[in-house]
Amino acid sequence: MSDFNLSCPIPLDQYPQVLLAHGGGGKLMNQLIEQMFAPTFQAATPPHDSIRLNLPSEKIAFTTDSYVINPLFFPGGDIGSLAIHGTVNDLAMSGARPLYLSAGFILEEGLDMTLLWRVVQSMQQAAQQAGVQIVTGDTKVVDRGKGDGIFINTAGIGIIEHEQIIAPLSVAVGDQVLLSGDLGRHGIAIMAVREGLAFETTIESDSASVAPQVLQLLDAGVEIHCLRDLTRGGLASALNEIASSAKVQIHIIERAVPLREDVQGACEILGFDPLYVANEGRFIAFIPPDGVDQALGILKQFDPQAAVIGTVTAKTTDSFGLVTLESGIGATRIVDMLSGEQLPRIC
Amino acid sequence: MSDFNLSCPIPLDQYPQVLLAHGGGGKLMNQLIEQMFAPTFQAATPPHDSIRLNLPSEKIAFTTDSYVINPLFFPGGDIGSLAIHGTVNDLAMSGARPLYLSAGFILEEGLDMTLLWRVVQSMQQAAQQAGVQIVTGDTKVVDRGKGDGIFINTAGIGIIEHEQIIAPLSVAVGDQVLLSGDLGRHGIAIMAVREGLAFETTIESDSASVAPQVLQLLDAGVEIHCLRDLTRGGLASALNEIASSAKVQIHIIERAVPLREDVQGACEILGFDPLYVANEGRFIAFIPPDGVDQALGILKQFDPQAAVIGTVTAKTTDSFGLVTLESGIGATRIVDMLSGEQLPRIC
Repeated sequence: MSDFNLSCPIPLDQYPQVLLAHGGGGKLMNQLIEQMFAPTFQAATPPHDSIRLNLPSEKIAFTTDSYVINPLFFPGGDIGSLAIHGTVNDLAMSGARPLYLSAGFILEEGLDMTLLWRVVQSMQQAAQQAGVQIVTGDTKVVDRGKGDGIFINTAGIGIIEHEQIIAPLSVAVGDQVLLSGDLGRHGIAIMAVREGLAFETTIESDSASVAPQVLQLLDAGVEIHCLRDLTRGGLASALNEIASSAKVQIHIIERAVPLREDVQGACEILGFDPLYVANEGRFIAFIPPDGVDQALGILKQFDPQAAVIGTVTAKTTDSFGLVTLESGIGATRIVDMLSGEQLPRIC
Repeated sequence: MSDFNLSCPIPLDQYPQVLLAHGGGGKLMNQLIEQMFAPTFQAATPPHDSIRLNLPSEKIAFTTDSYVINPLFFPGGDIGSLAIHGTVNDLAMSGARPLYLSAGFILEEGLDMTLLWRVVQSMQQAAQQAGVQIVTGDTKVVDRGKGDGIFINTAGIGIIEHEQIIAPLSVAVGDQVLLSGDLGRHGIAIMAVREGLAFETTIESDSASVAPQVLQLLDAGVEIHCLRDLTRGGLASALNEIASSAKVQIHIIERAVPLREDVQGACEILGFDPLYVANEGRFIAFIPPDGVDQALGILKQFDPQAAVIGTVTAKTTDSFGLVTLESGIGATRIVDMLSGEQLPRIC
């Protein structure tokens, strides 16, 4: 962290807060770009309208996400690192090696300049750890009361270095569902801050890049049918989306799903079902039976709680998918898509 | 336009407005994606975390912009078409052929669903006209009073099909500065709506894709040293940025700059200098003397007002650039970078 505690490069006596002019295309915007963004993100060339890149492959993955999380800082992360992890993970879920990100800031007039600086440094730290470069960006400022501090959009480009088709349509009956770690920490960490809840131990978000695990699975030659990270809507929504796209039934064993005791307790207090709580460093992998031992071994190197949690049991006869769950007491129930809003602005 | 006046695919009796749940990762978000976004943007495959693309080249351009314009609809365009034109133009400014865009929406709770639908249709229409596909996206909803209707981020990928280095560092003494059309209509159109001003004729924004002109210059083999679109900060800021990056002096002849009478009149009433007013369909090209006639001929096919407006006169001896202007009465003055905010939320 020490490299990322530099003093703010914008003169705070003059500009303690973000002004509308910081997004106006003039001197102040240039100062923000040239003194804060470009050196921190290690921009190689003078700013231009777009960046030229020479990709080592013509087969790429492309994705985008906006981040509007509230609060901006939370145990285990902040909007800056989250904006890197979320987009890197979306690329990894296509089996791509994440390489380049864009960063679009929508700042609210009056934002503390030092707060922006903390977020920018956190982004760069997360980008370095994830092995990606922030290569192009944009800054807009909206009037006070028309935004909420900081919104960040990142778009990402990754390259695909293998011939596998990792997508819902590749899911087949017999595939095992692997989960990369324990569930629910990101959502609970956010809710605890928002609601002012104090648990015995602080629950930290799981926000992290999962690209290393995915790339190691691919490098080891594991056959992967589908990957999906468990963000908004949690495990239940991810399973339902894939079941619906692949037109299959997925059966999950509840007691196989790793869940920390403190998270389970918090879910009970808050009235949440952990299956629907958002994560920012967890994913599921659909792996044909032959590869499961090898895949699980790799995932456990990164998180000992990685587990096989279910199976693709059948093709569905109608055009819908189905997700069922065997509960701790042996009863089977349908796990539906989340209706309505459980946790707004969780990412 | 007629293909884009379909009735809203979301049941308006149930959901006349955007709810927080439309960004929550559950059923309502899926309905929005599957019924509105995917069919309108002609998504080819079931939604996944990122889109796989096979690029016809390993040499690409990558860019991003967020759009926070206020008002959302204005004479000559709206935030949807603007979000396409702006990003397509940034790609074209690198001499790239724009191919793929991402679309990230940040919606305010309570937004009229029909208004969102108008914007989404306008985006697709503009994308079709510009020859690009919207291939991946994201939707977030923020609570009422924490956003402002619609913010849109688009990131774009284009391919570079030639060996030219189109960038500020390629600018050389002797280069002529070509302007692709008349100045200032976008900014004035927005200000007229905001301030409730009525001129004799409605001034329409120049918002448009300029990729066709750029691609035709490239196809014709014209040597291009640099391109820059004249958005926030207008012509003056673009010239200053390039002069500063290239460390050159650029001299502009004011009477050569095409300006419509009604725009000039509006600038006088509003107290704006047209050199600083934003455009969304205008660019400057730095062309070595040999290619100027051919380049101007091509630009005039798209807009008869295209003109040579100045020259790169010298390398600067210090590390800064310099922009000078010969006024209508023959005096020479320095054109500085915009300081402060002239027109907030113009794009």
